[in-house]
Amino acid sequence: MSYEIAPAICPPRRVLMGPGPSDISPRVLSAMAAPTVGHLDPYFLKIMDELQEMLRQVFRTRNQLTLAISGTGSDGMEACVFNLIEPGDKMLVCVNGVFGGRMAEVGRRAGAEVVTIEKPFGEIFTASEVESALKEHQPKLIGIVHAETSTGALQPLEEIAKLAHDHNALILADMVTSLGGLPVEVDEWGIDAVYSGTQKCLSCPPGLAPVTFSPRAVEVMDQRKEPVRSWYVDLSLIRNYWGGSRAYHHTAPINMNYGLHEALRIVLQEGLEARFARHQKNHEALKAGLAAIGIDYAVAEENSLPMLNAVKIPEGVDDKAVRAQLLNQFGIEIGAGLGPMAGKTWRIGLMGEASREANVLSFLAALEQCLAKQGHTLTAGASIAAANKVYAG
Amino acid sequence: MSYEIAPAICPPRRVLMGPGPSDISPRVLSAMAAPTVGHLDPYFLKIMDELQEMLRQVFRTRNQLTLAISGTGSDGMEACVFNLIEPGDKMLVCVNGVFGGRMAEVGRRAGAEVVTIEKPFGEIFTASEVESALKEHQPKLIGIVHAETSTGALQPLEEIAKLAHDHNALILADMVTSLGGLPVEVDEWGIDAVYSGTQKCLSCPPGLAPVTFSPRAVEVMDQRKEPVRSWYVDLSLIRNYWGGSRAYHHTAPINMNYGLHEALRIVLQEGLEARFARHQKNHEALKAGLAAIGIDYAVAEENSLPMLNAVKIPEGVDDKAVRAQLLNQFGIEIGAGLGPMAGKTWRIGLMGEASREANVLSFLAALEQCLAKQGHTLTAGASIAAANKVYAG
Repeated sequence: MSYEIAPAICPPRRVLMGPGPSDISPRVLSAMAAPTVGHLDPYFLKIMDELQEMLRQVFRTRNQLTLAISGTGSDGMEACVFNLIEPGDKMLVCVNGVFGGRMAEVGRRAGAEVVTIEKPFGEIFTASEVESALKEHQPKLIGIVHAETSTGALQPLEEIAKLAHDHNALILADMVTSLGGLPVEVDEWGIDAVYSGTQKCLSCPPGLAPVTFSPRAVEVMDQRKEPVRSWYVDLSLIRNYWGGSRAYHHTAPINMNYGLHEALRIVLQEGLEARFARHQKNHEALKAGLAAIGIDYAVAEENSLPMLNAVKIPEGVDDKAVRAQLLNQFGIEIGAGLGPMAGKTWRIGLMGEASREANVLSFLAALEQCLAKQGHTLTAGASIAAANKVYAG
Repeated sequence: MSYEIAPAICPPRRVLMGPGPSDISPRVLSAMAAPTVGHLDPYFLKIMDELQEMLRQVFRTRNQLTLAISGTGSDGMEACVFNLIEPGDKMLVCVNGVFGGRMAEVGRRAGAEVVTIEKPFGEIFTASEVESALKEHQPKLIGIVHAETSTGALQPLEEIAKLAHDHNALILADMVTSLGGLPVEVDEWGIDAVYSGTQKCLSCPPGLAPVTFSPRAVEVMDQRKEPVRSWYVDLSLIRNYWGGSRAYHHTAPINMNYGLHEALRIVLQEGLEARFARHQKNHEALKAGLAAIGIDYAVAEENSLPMLNAVKIPEGVDDKAVRAQLLNQFGIEIGAGLGPMAGKTWRIGLMGEASREANVLSFLAALEQCLAKQGHTLTAGASIAAANKVYAG
């Protein structure tokens, strides 16, 4: 018998400046290649404890129930919604992008009676808009996206969390893109449930979903009448593996957890404040550089995410041709627009390890070349000059 | 602000002879540490195509819908059940171990009307027992475990698959532990849906679940009236990312897929027949060695899995003390019993990379020392002599 065997893995060199995955530190890749141990090995149980403790620091929470779900960020979304919702529960979802829409869909699959409030892609919700909806619908759970990866918009949460509690609702926040890149204050803001991903500002490959749940959320889970619809993300079982009796649930992705462990070490070694400042500075330099060659943001300046820059593709410029040239000639990946923004925007990520001065400058230089090829009028070098001015200031 | 930062990953040296994860080839660990690329990068799309093609060879199928779910084996189980079952559907599950029980539970969570037939742990089902149940219940789907990791029993499937089709049922098989270690003939046997895991005989770290679906199963999915209960494992969406329009669904765990890619290359380079023969030979040597020091199997000889040896703990021997000594003194991990077999059996894995002559011999030598310490009567060196005789034969 003969087989068709593919050639060995040998990825091209890329700079990951899309919506995630972001660039990964060699330290994280190296940790992932450490020898696998068993999922009940005392060594791995210690790693799990350390992961929980480091995740609490990054989430800025004391929540006991803080761990990494064994799937990607979307599985973390499902874990949060499925564990908090029972069929017939009312769930309010704020939809201003793809991921709010996804949360509503997951709510429906969990059997919730989902009501949505909607805003055009790129806009955010005011506290009073959310308050009206809370008053009208009296939901058990409100779901909202902190950093909309599809639009680049940042949604303030503190006031909305207070309103949710005033109306006896739990609040669930999508922090996939914000965690590790801009301030996240789970306890201070009073967020009851959060899911994130590893492949954005934590700069670990995709594959795990950090989650955290407030004591209030845990109480709601403990009072469930029906089992969680998914066995795989049933936290009443998973939490006995991450703590308590250490009862086997599923075989944890050992090496992915090694990678997240090293990624969190890097985040905490840098320090959250320094990390947030770095993301902010590189965002400002990129923004100045883009402005200098006539590229506008797709979201209002005050709502723009530092780690994900959604910008308008200039009139007459071919979306796909530019992204292909960036990838093939320079090895730079940026993201296409999603949903109604497809073909109209680019999403330029400056997440985690990718948020570097060198990346901002080489991207701007490469983009100038691509835009010139497309006949877009610009002053050569203007973007670099503007970005360097920000760095110098 | 100061942080509590855990020390870097530095796992102890282990020989993984439990129920999985198994030992991982340095080639696979090294592939996992290759630089991450984007989930829509042309290079990664090529890797996905190659993965599908290599998985088809290992599953021995031409099924178009063959891919790796972005979660562990249990998530693969959920993917299969959730996509084939709609609320109210009748599902028959054959339960003779923990994983049959889990499949029944997942069926209930999917909204199925689950009926089970049961056998004591370690026994298997005859075709006529299954036929009676098919006649009586007329299920839409029958679920059965090919290789019960909890008991070490091998369930023949070919005749049962024919019976399932005779009764207009689809057949779903758990091949988590068998794939890559003993003959699996998805097409020839007529299995409609299969899930497996990466961390058993494929010797890749845990984190992905290879699945395959027959055209019949796909037709059933296409005719669903309700959406799949889990968005994360909804194959109507996932298959557009693994093929077709390459539409974004979730961010694939890139580096885990690199690892599986290299693991499958290793499997196919060895060749399936050679691999099965190796697993069988090492099993026979282990069995002979254990017999020589008075250790019996917990399952009948003709049903015993080559890659997972469930054996009875001798009278008066302390289960935990022996496993701890094996781990701490020799770095050898074996598995405890699960469910009703807890405390009564050990599960000795010889899976993938761990199925090696050197492992069999060093394990037997170490076990002799542990048993002697426990006061178990044995002729020193007898296990090694017996195992070597098998290798010499």
